[in-house]
Amino acid sequence: MENDMCRVCFHPEERCIEVARGENLLRAAMKADVHINASCGGEGSCGKCRVIVEKGDVKQKLGVKLSEEEVKQGYVLACCSSIESDLEVRVPIETQIGDKSALTRRPPIPLKGYTLSAEDWAKRLPQWELNPPTTKRHLIMEKPTLEDNLSDAERIKRDLARLSGMNDLVIDYPMLQALPGMIRASSFDVTVTVLDRGSDLRAVRIEKGDTTLRQAAIAIDLGTTTIATQLIDLQTGKVIAEAADYNGQIPYGEDVISRIIYSTRATGLAKLQSAVVNTIWNLIQEMVEKTNIEFCSITHLCISGNTTMTHLLLGLDPRYIRVDPYIPVAQYFPWIKASSLGIRIASGVYLHCTPGVASYVGGDIVAGVLASGMFNSEKMTLYIDIGTNGEMVLGNKDWMLACSCSAGPAFEGAGVKHGMRATRGAIEQVRINEATLEPMIITVGSKHAVGICGSGLIDLLAEMFLTGILDERGKVNVDLDTPRVREGNNGGEYVIAWAEETGTHRDIVITDVDVDNLMRAKAAVFAGINIMMEEVGMTLDMLDEILIAGAFGRYLEIDKAIIIGLLPDVDTEKIKFVGNGSLLGSYLMALSGNLIKEAERIARMMTYLELSTNAKFMDQYVSALFLPHTHSKNFPTVMRRLEEARERARTARGEAGGSDN
Amino acid sequence: MENDMCRVCFHPEERCIEVARGENLLRAAMKADVHINASCGGEGSCGKCRVIVEKGDVKQKLGVKLSEEEVKQGYVLACCSSIESDLEVRVPIETQIGDKSALTRRPPIPLKGYTLSAEDWAKRLPQWELNPPTTKRHLIMEKPTLEDNLSDAERIKRDLARLSGMNDLVIDYPMLQALPGMIRASSFDVTVTVLDRGSDLRAVRIEKGDTTLRQAAIAIDLGTTTIATQLIDLQTGKVIAEAADYNGQIPYGEDVISRIIYSTRATGLAKLQSAVVNTIWNLIQEMVEKTNIEFCSITHLCISGNTTMTHLLLGLDPRYIRVDPYIPVAQYFPWIKASSLGIRIASGVYLHCTPGVASYVGGDIVAGVLASGMFNSEKMTLYIDIGTNGEMVLGNKDWMLACSCSAGPAFEGAGVKHGMRATRGAIEQVRINEATLEPMIITVGSKHAVGICGSGLIDLLAEMFLTGILDERGKVNVDLDTPRVREGNNGGEYVIAWAEETGTHRDIVITDVDVDNLMRAKAAVFAGINIMMEEVGMTLDMLDEILIAGAFGRYLEIDKAIIIGLLPDVDTEKIKFVGNGSLLGSYLMALSGNLIKEAERIARMMTYLELSTNAKFMDQYVSALFLPHTHSKNFPTVMRRLEEARERARTARGEAGGSDN
Repeated sequence: MENDMCRVCFHPEERCIEVARGENLLRAAMKADVHINASCGGEGSCGKCRVIVEKGDVKQKLGVKLSEEEVKQGYVLACCSSIESDLEVRVPIETQIGDKSALTRRPPIPLKGYTLSAEDWAKRLPQWELNPPTTKRHLIMEKPTLEDNLSDAERIKRDLARLSGMNDLVIDYPMLQALPGMIRASSFDVTVTVLDRGSDLRAVRIEKGDTTLRQAAIAIDLGTTTIATQLIDLQTGKVIAEAADYNGQIPYGEDVISRIIYSTRATGLAKLQSAVVNTIWNLIQEMVEKTNIEFCSITHLCISGNTTMTHLLLGLDPRYIRVDPYIPVAQYFPWIKASSLGIRIASGVYLHCTPGVASYVGGDIVAGVLASGMFNSEKMTLYIDIGTNGEMVLGNKDWMLACSCSAGPAFEGAGVKHGMRATRGAIEQVRINEATLEPMIITVGSKHAVGICGSGLIDLLAEMFLTGILDERGKVNVDLDTPRVREGNNGGEYVIAWAEETGTHRDIVITDVDVDNLMRAKAAVFAGINIMMEEVGMTLDMLDEILIAGAFGRYLEIDKAIIIGLLPDVDTEKIKFVGNGSLLGSYLMALSGNLIKEAERIARMMTYLELSTNAKFMDQYVSALFLPHTHSKNFPTVMRRLEEARERARTARGEAGGSDN
Repeated sequence: MENDMCRVCFHPEERCIEVARGENLLRAAMKADVHINASCGGEGSCGKCRVIVEKGDVKQKLGVKLSEEEVKQGYVLACCSSIESDLEVRVPIETQIGDKSALTRRPPIPLKGYTLSAEDWAKRLPQWELNPPTTKRHLIMEKPTLEDNLSDAERIKRDLARLSGMNDLVIDYPMLQALPGMIRASSFDVTVTVLDRGSDLRAVRIEKGDTTLRQAAIAIDLGTTTIATQLIDLQTGKVIAEAADYNGQIPYGEDVISRIIYSTRATGLAKLQSAVVNTIWNLIQEMVEKTNIEFCSITHLCISGNTTMTHLLLGLDPRYIRVDPYIPVAQYFPWIKASSLGIRIASGVYLHCTPGVASYVGGDIVAGVLASGMFNSEKMTLYIDIGTNGEMVLGNKDWMLACSCSAGPAFEGAGVKHGMRATRGAIEQVRINEATLEPMIITVGSKHAVGICGSGLIDLLAEMFLTGILDERGKVNVDLDTPRVREGNNGGEYVIAWAEETGTHRDIVITDVDVDNLMRAKAAVFAGINIMMEEVGMTLDMLDEILIAGAFGRYLEIDKAIIIGLLPDVDTEKIKFVGNGSLLGSYLMALSGNLIKEAERIARMMTYLELSTNAKFMDQYVSALFLPHTHSKNFPTVMRRLEEARERARTARGEAGGSDN
C-alpha cells in the first residue's frame, strides 16, 4: 500500500504532497495549494496547464496540445497527466498567472522594488519589541492557610504583583464566578493571561498549569468586500495561518453606503453584525484547523476596518456617517469582549478595533499608516488606499493630513457596464496591440472572461489611450479601422472580448460612459492629492515616497495608473506597495501593545481635510477630467510614452512616419 | 363628600391622615403608620390600645375595658372607637411598645446617650463633602459641522473635559449603540452621568436635556435575615425613603452556613442570587413608589453585606467560605452593572459592594467601622456586631484588629427550644419579679407569645440570674418555691408563659440546655474580645468606647448584656449604639466617593485574627462559661447588683435578712 503513494514536489513553490499513484497531476497541484492556470476545467482543450516534469514519470493522454519543442523540454499538460512515480514538477511562470480564487490571486510581476521586503519594513518601523497587549504569567501559589487566608482573587493579584510587578489586576465577575473551582482543581498552579488595556490590567483568562508557551493572537483586516485574517503565534511573533473570505455582509449591499442604508431597517444592523461576525468566526475556525493552536490559546484580536465596517461589527449605528456632516458614533473604540459580539473564543478574550480619524478615514488607514512606518519617518510620504473611496494621507512623523475622496465604486467595477469585482472570470490585465488594436487579456482564475475588474480597467484605459483608441477627453475613436470600435447605446465602445470567447456569451465592451465614470474616479483621487499638497504648500518634487495600499494596489500596474493620471507622474521608484496595510497594521498591533498606543496617537495627530466643501477641489477635479490631465506638462513621462506609442502604432500600421502629419 | 372626611393627627408622632368619617381609629393609626399596641386583633379584649383623644369626638363600643379614672382622662380603646370628627390623638408610651412588624419595631427606651445623635456622628466622621461617586454634567454641545466633525462620543468627551476637567470618559458599547439617536433627538443638549470607579471615569447614563437636579442613589444593608434599604436624594444627601424586608433567601436556609450548603446544589447559587435580587428590587420599587423620584434618576447603589451575602448577590461560589481555611472568592469587588444582576434600573448603572476583610468579617463590618468613625478617631474602640457570628473590631485610626467568633445562632433563637427570630409574637423583653419570680413579658407586635428572640433571651438570662433562678453555672434552681421552675426533658426549666397565655397553646420555657447554648454563645463573644485585647496587650480600662452595631444592638439592654457577661463590665456610658452600621456606611459611601476609597483602605488596614486556631481562645472561652464569668472580680458592677438583687429578693420573700447566712 505504501508503495502506491507518490510524493510530488512543486517548484518554485517548494510544496510537496503525498498522493495515490495514478492521481491526476492537476488535482495533486490543487491539493497542494499550488496554482496552475487551467481554464477549460481539465479537459485539455485550453492547453494552459503546462508544467515541466523535471524528475519522475507521468502517463499522458494522447493528443495533447504541445509542440515537439515543448515535449522535448519536459512539458506536460497537468490536467492530462496521471502520476506514475515520485515527481519533481516545475510550474512555469505563465502557468501561475491567475489563481484559484480572487482572494489569493497572484499579482503581476511588479516593478523592481515596488513591493517592500521584510528588511524594508524593519527599517520603517520604530524600535519595537514583541510585547503583546496580553501577557501570560505562570503562578505557583502558596495554598491558603488559616494564617494566610487571602481570597482567591487577592492571592492571584498578590502573586502576580510579586512575580511581574503588575498591580491592581481586575478580575471580572464571570471569571470570579469560575475561579474557586478552577484554582483548587489546579492546586493553585495557574496561568493568568493579563490584558493591558491602557486604563487597567484585566485578567482575560485564568487556567490550569503552565500554558505560557501557548499563546496566539488574531489580526484582521475588516474590509467592505474582503476580510483577511492571520493567526499569530505569540511565542515567535510569526503568522502561522492565514485565511480570507468575502465579507458576509455583501448580500446586504456591495458598498458601505448600501450597507448603511440596510442597517437602518428594523433588524438591519443586527443582521449585518451577525453576518460579519460569522465570516470572522469561520475564518478563525479555518485557521485554527490548519494549525495545532487551540482556540483557548488565542488571547486577543486586533481588527482594523474602515469606520463603517467597524461600526457594523460593534453594532454601532452608522447612519450619520452617510449624511452631512458625516459623523460616526465613535472614533476610538474601547476594548470589547469578543464573546459579546458572538465570536466564540474564550469568553474573557478582548478585541481591539483600530481607531479612525473620521467617517471616511478609518482604522484601516490608521493601521496602514502604522504599518508603513510613515509616522516614524522624516520622508515626505503620500499614502494612498483606493477602493470605493480614495483615502489618502500626506505627511511624515511631524504632521499628517488625511482626506477621502469619493472615487465612486468605479474601480470596483460599479458604474461600468461590464465592471465586476476581481472574482473568477474578471479581466485583470489587458494589452492592446498597437498595430491591430486587438487585445490580450488575462482573467482571474483564467476562466472565460465575464467582466472586467479594477486593475483591468486601469490597464485597459491606459492601453486604449496609448494606442489612440481613447482621446484625451476619454472618448472612443470609432473611426479607427477595426471592428473592435463601434457606436453603441452608450456612445462609442471598444469590444474587449467577443461573445464567443466569453463566459457570458455576450460581447464584453467598454463604453464612453464607462470611461467617463472611470475618469471621474481617477480625477477625484488626483484632485484630492493635489488639494492636500496645496494645503501644505508642497509640490510634487518634495514628495519622497508614494505608498500604495490595499488589494487594489497589489494588482495595479503603476505605470498604467500614471498614464491615465490617477497617480502623479513621479519617478516610479518612489512608488512602493505596502500590501494590505490594514492587515499588516493589525498584525503589528497584535504583537505590540506599544503600537496600539502608537495607532491611537496616529489617529489623533492626523488632520482630516474635508474635500466636499473645499472650494478648490472642484477646480482641481475638472482639470483632472482629462487623459492624463489638462495640464499635460505635469505628466512629461506620460507625454513621451504617448508620443512613442503613437509613433510605433503609425509605423506598425504602415502609415506615413512623418512627424508633421 | 368633602365633609365626610376627617383629619386625624397622632401625637407624639405628629403624623396626620385623612380618613372617612366612621373609620375605626386603630385602622386609621395603622394607615398613618403609627404604632398602637394591640394584641387581641381589635376585639377590645386585651385593652392595650389605649389612646387619649385630646380633641374631637369618637363613638365608642359599649363595655370597653377602661377604668372610670381613665375615661375621665380621655382614654379610649382605639380598636373600639369610630371617628366622628377631626381628631387630635395622643398615643401614650405604653401603647407604643412593640410594632406592626419586627423590622420596624421600636427599641426600648435606651440609656441616655446610648444611641448616637446626628451631632455625634458629625464629630466622628472625617471631613467629607457631598461628593457622590456619580456626577451629573449638563452639556450643551455645538452641533457637528463639516469643520467640527468629531464623532458623537468624542464630542461628549471633549465638552465634558472642557466643562469639568474630566478626561478620558469611557462610554461602553450598549451606550454607544444608543448614542447617535439620543444625542440628535436632544439636539446635542444632554446630561451625562459619570461614575468615578477609581480606575476610570465611566458614563453610566446619557440622557436628554438637563437632569442634573434629579439624582438619587440607593444604600443597602444586605443582611442574612433582613435587607434594609434607603433611597437618597443626592441633591440634598437626605434619605427620602426607607424600606426593609426579610431576605428572600430565608426559605433556602436560615443562616449563612445553610445557604452556602444550598448554593452547592445544581442551581442553588442561581436561585439564591435570584431570591436576594428580587428582595432588593421589590424594596427599590417600594421606595420609588413612595416618592417622586424616577427609577432613571438612580445613578448608583452602595451595598454592604457579610462576605457570604455579598458572594451570593454577585453569583460568586461561597463554598470555600465554609471549610477550613475559610477562603472567599474575593474580598474586593469591582463595580458591577446592577442590570447584570437583574436589578432593573437604568442599564448603565453600577453597584458597589463594600470590601470585606475575611470570610467572616465582611463588608457590613467595614461599612460599620466607616460609619462609626473609629477609623478616624484616637479613641481606643471596640466595635461589636452580634448575629450568628460575633464580629468584633478593636482599634482606632492607627490600627485595627478584627475577629469573628462563631457565637452560634443562639441569639437568633436557634439551639433554644422556644427560640425564634424577632418576628410577631417573639418575647423581646422580660422582667422577673424578685419576690414572686413571676415574669412580665413584651412581645414583638404585642401578640400572644409564640417564642423568644435574642434580646428577650439576654433579658431573661440576666433576670433569672439576678433573681437566683439561674446559678453561676447557668443551671435552673428547680428547688425554688414557684411552679415556674421544674424538671423537664432537658434538665431544669423555667416557664416564661403558660400554655393558655401563648399563641402556641403550649408552655414557653427556657431549659438548662437552652441556657447552656446561650452561655456558649456569650462566652465565645467575650473570649473573642479578651483575645483581641491580649493580642495587643490592652486592658479593659484602656478601652475608651464600645460600639454596638446591628439590629440586635438596638433592642439590647446593655446592662443585661453585662450581667450575663456578654459584654465586659465597663462604665455603661462608654457603650454606644451605632444602629445599622452596615446601612449607615452604605449611605455614607453613596454620598461620597472618597468614603468608598476610605472603606477599601479600612478593609486593607484591618488585621484579621483567626480565633479557631488560637491556643489561648479555648482557655478564655472556658473561663467565660460562667455567669457572669469565672473571674467575677472583673465584673464588680455585676457582683454588686447581684448582691443587691438577691438581698431584695430575700427581703421580699420575707427570708432572714442577715448577711451571714
